[in-house]
Amino acid sequence: MSSNSKKILILAGDGIGPEVMGEVKRTLGWFEKRRGSGFETEDGLVGGCSFDKHGVPLTDETMQKAIDADAVLLGAVGGPKWDNLPFKDKPERGLLRLRKDMELFANLRPALVFDALAEASSLKTELVKGLDIMIVRELTGGVYFGSPRGIETLPNGERRGINTQVYTTSEIQRVARVAFELARKRGNKLCSVEKANVMESGVLWREEVQKLGDTEYKDVQLSHMYADNCAMQLVRQPKQFDVIVTDNLFGDLLSDCAAMLTGSLGMLPSASLGAADKGGKRKALYEPVHGSAPDIAGQGKANPLACLLSLSMMLRYSFDQGEDADLLEKAANNVVAKGFRTGDIMAPGCTLVGTKEMGDEILKELDRLAA
Amino acid sequence: MSSNSKKILILAGDGIGPEVMGEVKRTLGWFEKRRGSGFETEDGLVGGCSFDKHGVPLTDETMQKAIDADAVLLGAVGGPKWDNLPFKDKPERGLLRLRKDMELFANLRPALVFDALAEASSLKTELVKGLDIMIVRELTGGVYFGSPRGIETLPNGERRGINTQVYTTSEIQRVARVAFELARKRGNKLCSVEKANVMESGVLWREEVQKLGDTEYKDVQLSHMYADNCAMQLVRQPKQFDVIVTDNLFGDLLSDCAAMLTGSLGMLPSASLGAADKGGKRKALYEPVHGSAPDIAGQGKANPLACLLSLSMMLRYSFDQGEDADLLEKAANNVVAKGFRTGDIMAPGCTLVGTKEMGDEILKELDRLAA
Ligand SMILES: [Mg+2]
Ligand SMILES: [Mg+2]
Repeated sequence: MSSNSKKILILAGDGIGPEVMGEVKRTLGWFEKRRGSGFETEDGLVGGCSFDKHGVPLTDETMQKAIDADAVLLGAVGGPKWDNLPFKDKPERGLLRLRKDMELFANLRPALVFDALAEASSLKTELVKGLDIMIVRELTGGVYFGSPRGIETLPNGERRGINTQVYTTSEIQRVARVAFELARKRGNKLCSVEKANVMESGVLWREEVQKLGDTEYKDVQLSHMYADNCAMQLVRQPKQFDVIVTDNLFGDLLSDCAAMLTGSLGMLPSASLGAADKGGKRKALYEPVHGSAPDIAGQGKANPLACLLSLSMMLRYSFDQGEDADLLEKAANNVVAKGFRTGDIMAPGCTLVGTKEMGDEILKELDRLAA
Repeated sequence: MSSNSKKILILAGDGIGPEVMGEVKRTLGWFEKRRGSGFETEDGLVGGCSFDKHGVPLTDETMQKAIDADAVLLGAVGGPKWDNLPFKDKPERGLLRLRKDMELFANLRPALVFDALAEASSLKTELVKGLDIMIVRELTGGVYFGSPRGIETLPNGERRGINTQVYTTSEIQRVARVAFELARKRGNKLCSVEKANVMESGVLWREEVQKLGDTEYKDVQLSHMYADNCAMQLVRQPKQFDVIVTDNLFGDLLSDCAAMLTGSLGMLPSASLGAADKGGKRKALYEPVHGSAPDIAGQGKANPLACLLSLSMMLRYSFDQGEDADLLEKAANNVVAKGFRTGDIMAPGCTLVGTKEMGDEILKELDRLAA
C-alpha cells in the first residue's frame, strides 16, 4: 500500500448507522468529483448485523481489512435485538475488538457548540456558547480490557463478578503525549483526570503524566483533577477546560457528559487514533458519538451531521486534507445556521428535515462554498 | 447500650469541617433544650488532623468509638497539606476505613433543589425546579476496595498500577434492597446503573437487581441504564429519575454530577447506612456532600446547611425523629427563602451571611416554628 493510498473501510453497523453512512458516502462522492480526492472505499459488517450474518460481531476477515485500511469510518452498533446475547457476542464486542486490534489507544472527543445550537443545551446558554473542549480518552486499556475478568460461582452458591483496572507506564505516556500535542495546538492547557485519592492505578496515572509535563511538555499548563470533581466541574463551568486526558472508564462517562452539555449529541464526531508509523501515519477509526438509536432506525429521521463531521475529522487527521475538512465543517455550520434541522436538534421557527434532505443541503452548501 | 440511647460520635475533620460542625452542635443543643432529645455526644479526629496528631488518618480507638456509636456525624476530610502523603496515610483513607469497618454499604445521596435556589443551577431553571432524586451508591465494594491492588515495577523497568472491580451476589442484593425500599416510599421507580455491555461485574449487577425486582419487588418499576448514558441523562433531563442504584465508582461520579445539577453543593447532605440489627437499627454515618474547602477554611464563610441537613437525615433515619427532621428542613428552607445566603449560594438582592450568622438564623427560625 503506497503512503498516498486512501483506502477507507466503511462499517455502517446497526440501527441508524446505514442511514447516516449513506449521506457520508454521497459526501465522499462529492469530494471525489469536485476535489479530486482519490478514495478507495469498501463496505463491511460490524455489530449485530455481523452477528446475524456470521455469528460473530466482527469476523477475522473484516478485522484484517480494518487493519489494512488507511482509515475506518463506522456508523453505530447495538440494539435491543442483541441485548441478551452472551457477553462475547454482543455488538459492542465488535467495536471493542476493532479498537483493541487496531491499537487505537487515543479517543478524541470534541465537545463543541455550534452558535446556532447553543440554546439547545440544557445548560444556560452563556455557559456553553462558544464551548470547545477536547477530551482525550484512553481507549484500549483499563477496566474494560483488564484480566482477570468474568463471573464465577463461589462455594456458598453466590456469584462473583470481576474486572481488572490496569495501566502501565507506556500506556499512560502514549495517550498523554497525544493530549499534550493537541493542547499545544489549542489553548495550551491540559487537565489530567483520575482518582489518585482512592486508586493506585490513578496514583500511577498522575505521576506519569506529571513526569511527562515536567520533562517534554514544560510549555503546556498541566493540572490534575479527581474524576468525580471533573464530573461536577463539567456541569458547573465547562469552559474552564481546554484538553482533558483520562482513562478508559472515566473517559467513557466524562466524554458523554461533556457531549450532552452541548445539547446536540447528533452533531458530535469522534476519532480514535493509534501509534504513528514511520511515515507518521496513524491507524484511525472515525465514528459519530451517538448510538444506533433503534427507536428511529429505518425511518429516515436520523441526523447525519455527526457522521459527516467524523468524515471531516478523517480528512483532517488521516489524509491531511485540512482545507477539505474546513469546507465540510463550514457547510455543516451554515446549513444549521440556515435553520435546517433533523428532529433531534429541531427548534421553533426552523425547518424540519430528514436524513436525506439534510445530506442534500450539505451537498448544496458544499457546491455553493466551492463555487 | 440500650436501644434508646442516642450516642453520637462527632468527627469534624479538616478544612471547613470544624466550622460547619460548630453550627450542628448548637442546633443539637437546641433540640436537647427545646425538644428534650437526650443526645450523648463525643468528639473525635479523622483525616489530616488525625494524621497530624496520631500519624494515621483514623486511630483504632476512634474507629471503635464509631462502631459503638448510634450515629456518626462527619464534617469533611482532606486538603493540600496532605496531598502528597503516601496512599495509606491520606485523609480519605480515614473516611474509607470508617465506611468499610462500619460496613456502611448504602450511601444515600439526595439531589434536591430548594425552590429559592433553582436559579443557582447551571441548568435551565425549568429542568431542575422541583428536582428530587435519590442516588443510592454502593459504598464498601467495587474497585476502590478490591484486591489485588497496588503499583508494581515490571522486569522492563515500567510500572503497572492495578485495582480490582469485584462484586458478589449478596453485596449487590443488600444495596439494591435499600434502593427498592426507598423507591417504595417515593415515586416507586428504580433505575439500576452499570456497564453490563463491557464489564462482567456489570452483567452480574444487572442480573441480580433484576432477580430481586422479579421476586421481592414486583410492585416497583425497575429499569436499567448504562453508566455513560446515565451521565448524559442526568444532564439532559434529570427529573426522569426517582431512585438510582449503582456501584461505588459509578455512584461516585454520578452522585456528584447530580449534586452539581442542583447548583447548591453547599446544601446537600448524605447518609451512609449499614445492615439493620435485630432491633432494626442500622449503623449510620451522616456527612455533607461538600469537601473540606481548604480555600475558605477558618474564615467563617462556609455554608453550614449541608451539615445541618445531614443532621436532619440523622434524626430521621437513626433516631426516628421524623417530626424534628421535618422541622429542621423547614427551618433551612425558610431561612434560604428569606434571602439569607452564604457566599456559595449568594444571589443578587440576598443578604450575605457567614457560617455563624447562618446558624443564628436557623436557630431563630426553629424558635419561631416551634413557638
Ligand atoms: Mg460512552
Ligand atoms: Mg465523589
